[in-house]
Amino acid sequence: MFEVHPFDIEIGQYKVMLNLADARELGINAGDRVRIRTKGASLVAILDTTTAMVAKGQVGIFTEALKELKGAMTVDIFPAPKPQSISYIKRIMDNERLSEDQIRTIVRDIVDNNLSEVELSAYITASYIHKMDAQETEWLTRAMIETGDRIYFDTHPVVDKHSIGGVPGNKVSLLVVPIVAAAGLLIPKTSSRAITGAGGTADLMEILAPVEFTADEIKEITEDVGGVIAWGGATNIAPADDKLIKQEYSLSIDPYSQMLASIMAKKGAVGADAVVVDMPVGPGTKLETQEDGRSLAKDLMDLGDRLGIKVECAMTFGGSPVGRTVGPALEIREALTMLETGQGPNSLREKGLALAGILLEMGGVAGRGEGHRRAEEILASGRAHKKLMEIIEAQGGDPAVKSADIQIGDHQEQILSPSTGYVVAFYNKRIVEIARIAGAPSDKKAGVIIHRKMGEMVKKGEPLLTICSSSDWELECAIKDCTMRDIKRQVPIVVEGMLLERYPRMTEI
Amino acid sequence: MFEVHPFDIEIGQYKVMLNLADARELGINAGDRVRIRTKGASLVAILDTTTAMVAKGQVGIFTEALKELKGAMTVDIFPAPKPQSISYIKRIMDNERLSEDQIRTIVRDIVDNNLSEVELSAYITASYIHKMDAQETEWLTRAMIETGDRIYFDTHPVVDKHSIGGVPGNKVSLLVVPIVAAAGLLIPKTSSRAITGAGGTADLMEILAPVEFTADEIKEITEDVGGVIAWGGATNIAPADDKLIKQEYSLSIDPYSQMLASIMAKKGAVGADAVVVDMPVGPGTKLETQEDGRSLAKDLMDLGDRLGIKVECAMTFGGSPVGRTVGPALEIREALTMLETGQGPNSLREKGLALAGILLEMGGVAGRGEGHRRAEEILASGRAHKKLMEIIEAQGGDPAVKSADIQIGDHQEQILSPSTGYVVAFYNKRIVEIARIAGAPSDKKAGVIIHRKMGEMVKKGEPLLTICSSSDWELECAIKDCTMRDIKRQVPIVVEGMLLERYPRMTEI
Repeated sequence: MFEVHPFDIEIGQYKVMLNLADARELGINAGDRVRIRTKGASLVAILDTTTAMVAKGQVGIFTEALKELKGAMTVDIFPAPKPQSISYIKRIMDNERLSEDQIRTIVRDIVDNNLSEVELSAYITASYIHKMDAQETEWLTRAMIETGDRIYFDTHPVVDKHSIGGVPGNKVSLLVVPIVAAAGLLIPKTSSRAITGAGGTADLMEILAPVEFTADEIKEITEDVGGVIAWGGATNIAPADDKLIKQEYSLSIDPYSQMLASIMAKKGAVGADAVVVDMPVGPGTKLETQEDGRSLAKDLMDLGDRLGIKVECAMTFGGSPVGRTVGPALEIREALTMLETGQGPNSLREKGLALAGILLEMGGVAGRGEGHRRAEEILASGRAHKKLMEIIEAQGGDPAVKSADIQIGDHQEQILSPSTGYVVAFYNKRIVEIARIAGAPSDKKAGVIIHRKMGEMVKKGEPLLTICSSSDWELECAIKDCTMRDIKRQVPIVVEGMLLERYPRMTEI
Repeated sequence: MFEVHPFDIEIGQYKVMLNLADARELGINAGDRVRIRTKGASLVAILDTTTAMVAKGQVGIFTEALKELKGAMTVDIFPAPKPQSISYIKRIMDNERLSEDQIRTIVRDIVDNNLSEVELSAYITASYIHKMDAQETEWLTRAMIETGDRIYFDTHPVVDKHSIGGVPGNKVSLLVVPIVAAAGLLIPKTSSRAITGAGGTADLMEILAPVEFTADEIKEITEDVGGVIAWGGATNIAPADDKLIKQEYSLSIDPYSQMLASIMAKKGAVGADAVVVDMPVGPGTKLETQEDGRSLAKDLMDLGDRLGIKVECAMTFGGSPVGRTVGPALEIREALTMLETGQGPNSLREKGLALAGILLEMGGVAGRGEGHRRAEEILASGRAHKKLMEIIEAQGGDPAVKSADIQIGDHQEQILSPSTGYVVAFYNKRIVEIARIAGAPSDKKAGVIIHRKMGEMVKKGEPLLTICSSSDWELECAIKDCTMRDIKRQVPIVVEGMLLERYPRMTEI
């Protein structure tokens, strides 16, 4: 019988802390599982031990477990077996194959918070080193679908779009979704927020309308107006992915089979029949070469076949930002302008039409080879713009919004070219860093306008970039980061003949 | 400027918690590092995020970091880079070789608590999958030595003994240390406590004398009486190992290169010139086959050569317990009896003399092939017994202690053979489980006396085991575990012809 010592800290799982002496008496160690039992409640928690935080005879119980124990003052504690998942994770380490049941058990334990961070990290690390085979990846995907909410549409086809990411300014979903929905297809698009970028599609859309919906609400909106642009993190769709992302971020790794499964689980769970995957290829993206892109495309299409989902992949140019803006408000303004006028940067227009066109063909509303032209018609006719306004209204936003209404940070500074010449180097990563220092994505009005891209001509004194921010101080920091002469800081845009510095790295041009 | 919200919980490292909204504004995520600065103090901590536990504008700070901030009410928070170790751990995942500097950086970060549990787990998992090569393992060992306390003896040779473990009742250090010290060699032995066993050497010795000493005290005692039997966990010798063991236990893995380095770092740090390694081989031990044993022996000897430490390995029989007792007090009584009378189980006597003999030869006080005989003389002469009493006194225990003084749990029960025949199966693991259920190692008086070992004859009604405990209830549990008819519970000793059950597993005999 142990006296409960409450630790009111949420840590995402059932966890308790015993004095080391008590743990020894029970014959258990930190990382073991214990069953906590009191009148009317019983749960299994992960044990930690301490010599100082709780006295002998006490048990420290963290918020999540406390709630389950409903104010009990004393509890009984017994050793409990570790989750079976741990031995299956060991199998991955040993490069042995897993059965469908074993994979489902791991995913279930992840979703139910039954694994400690140490164990989750081991799963991610082992999965990174030893890829699953195609059959295991299918099982993993199915398990991720089954352990979350699902949407079943009565009307088909349902189409969807995913981007592998890695290119800044990639606001194309704001064109693709309304074009496709305007053509009569259903497209229940869930998007992410930026983790290391300057703005995810969900961060952008949030300027126009709420983006946090349940799976049921996503279904309803999609059935109502044909499309939705929601934040995936607010749903319970393929929730295992959300649990894994935190550790993957900590370790800066993205296990291949897990990535395939995460992409396709989200699409499978919303009932997609056909999916187009945007794969930006180029230095600095996740796919350095076209070879890498082809290999990933093959694996995604194979996985789609196994799940009964048609997949097409589009390798896109990832060397420069899409369009000429980076940062939520700037990107929304650029996308709205394109929908309102049909005009705007060619890279944005062409990419949006190409991806929408593929979906129109896959969804059977355009003949093979006709998709791009149909998408162009829909954009030019204003129907795509009208459709986005319907989606905005259905999500609870203002359907009268105009591109000119979008507020941009009023602290702005132009970065001028110090010489006349051509842009001979353009570093996407640096553009994102500068936008983030200016405040993006949490300051939605912060970002970077790009006046010159790779290969374009510029005269001395003409602007290369405009940096925008809501805060004078953050603008100053971004300017400093953009222009400082420091060996660790790459100048974002290099103009031929402009000698900004004499460090060795200039030889890389 | 953030308001400090104290979380008075020790978690083993500098950790802080921000509201998710604040973290987004700072452009950082859970797992990132932040610099916390206040008047007169500055530290780098690992970030976690929350939507509920701390409000916007507040920062939750855990005990370890709180102490450094000396009561500050407000702090500034800035993003800080992740430790470089993380990119080196990624190299291990990618099966790339590390430099000496990179390995040293990882070990330093482990010792300084600069890595989160997630990152430590990734290091252990990656090291388990991708072994280091011999050069890297040498660097790892040297880094583990350099990041802790070291002992430099003026007199040489210094010898030491290590057991790979995995066999119950392995109390041989209690013979080896006094025999070797009585022959004039220095042997500063640090030992472990049981984690999953029924008693480590440190748990045993603690019955006779205190075992918690600093490196300086270990040096002093060893110089004074020739030997010591201390608990390694109380020292700061090769402290990286202590940090890793917790996660290794959680994951039930023991990365090979890390195991080699941990063994040799502890020996290198105490200045050993020569080391004998006891390698129990057999089913249920860590070394299933002699092939495994030979391969480990070669790697340990190679690593010793690189470090300038002579290593010899002794493959020993690991199929049955050493001696006939398992559990701290029972084992101490058995070892003391052997020292007092020279008499006792042959397995204990022979193993102790063999290992001591090897060290006498390695230390140059016995000719090649003469060690065993010399060890036997020292034991028979009573000099080993006298030496252990000196060591006990030097460690602060009672040098007049007799084997007959050692208290055994007075709740005892004999487990009788249900038939006449030979012991045809003997499960070490089950003996340890029963001893632990009876209370060992925290109840030092608990354990198991083994009356019949593999191959021995027994008549119906004669005792197979005696279970001892300080607690009636724990004795009952141990008896139940020993005798219950349950498919999950292997009978510990199987006598030919004794039909205890009809489950399929009987066919394994």
